Amino acid sequence: MIERTRLIGIDPGLRFTGWGVIDVEGNRLMHVADGVIATDGDEPVPARLCALYDALTALIQTHKPTEAAVEETYVNRNGSSTLKLGYARGVALLAPALENLTVAEYGAMAVKRAVVGTGAATKDQVEMMVRRLLPTATISRADASDALAVVICHAHHRASTLRVAQGQRSASARAWGGRS
Amino acid sequence: MIERTRLIGIDPGLRFTGWGVIDVEGNRLMHVADGVIATDGDEPVPARLCALYDALTALIQTHKPTEAAVEETYVNRNGSSTLKLGYARGVALLAPALENLTVAEYGAMAVKRAVVGTGAATKDQVEMMVRRLLPTATISRADASDALAVVICHAHHRASTLRVAQGQRSASARAWGGRS
Repeated sequence: MIERTRLIGIDPGLRFTGWGVIDVEGNRLMHVADGVIATDGDEPVPARLCALYDALTALIQTHKPTEAAVEETYVNRNGSSTLKLGYARGVALLAPALENLTVAEYGAMAVKRAVVGTGAATKDQVEMMVRRLLPTATISRADASDALAVVICHAHHRASTLRVAQGQRSASARAWGGRS
Repeated sequence: MIERTRLIGIDPGLRFTGWGVIDVEGNRLMHVADGVIATDGDEPVPARLCALYDALTALIQTHKPTEAAVEETYVNRNGSSTLKLGYARGVALLAPALENLTVAEYGAMAVKRAVVGTGAATKDQVEMMVRRLLPTATISRADASDALAVVICHAHHRASTLRVAQGQRSASARAWGGRS
């Protein structure tokens, strides 16, 4: 019998955080759930971070994934935007780690390569492939598609990622343990 | 009888996070404790964020402050450093907010002005004034001095800050509620 593993993908942002949960059984991917966590732009930042943290923690406790994959976004915008994205990513890395999930990060190129086959793929091509691989996905916003893309990427890289966690290195994937 | 309020100041960083706890009674400031939370640079980032979160939460639960002040750092370094600082600041804003503290942020200029009297003060001048105002402070590293400086700034601005929390605005201080 092939082991079934549940994974969550997160595409963090202070305004919208996409998430997607899938099951992996050998080479088979099965969609479980996906969606977007929105925080109120009129609320103060600490309250928005609490809302994001509470929502991610509730999702993890509901769906019980054992591994998380977070999109590693690089930004060229101003320092203030980068800092705010950093807050959201900090919370997106913290919440699964506090729930004892393994947390892996993947850059945009690695995600595109894993999902479409080329690091030069467009957003539309990524979403089309996500919909093809996971036909029951909802994808109410592009953020959910990005979260499913990073978790598909993690499913493909898991074998090598798990090796990384055991002390080896890879250019495209870093697997990180939770709280020790 | 004048009410005594306990405040915590936090100067966040992924490597070193300074913290300082003081009591305020009218215009009197009393040092309670200060220190630095260090995370292991060899550990994966999610584990370091967990360590920072756990340490801040333990400090808050031990000393029971009711308000937090966080230094609002602006960085001119590269995007990757800004993003990492963002992770630590995200956790430094989240931890007190999850414990239902009011969280206020102050920029470096506002802190210098409150502690030394001029926004052009040097780091050494700030530390000297912190040691003069709080003679029993330990200040094992400059980060602890910065955390005490931001909490002194908050003590000075509290009256106006509390007005801000009630709907008004100020250029130097923003007071933010915890989780709603």
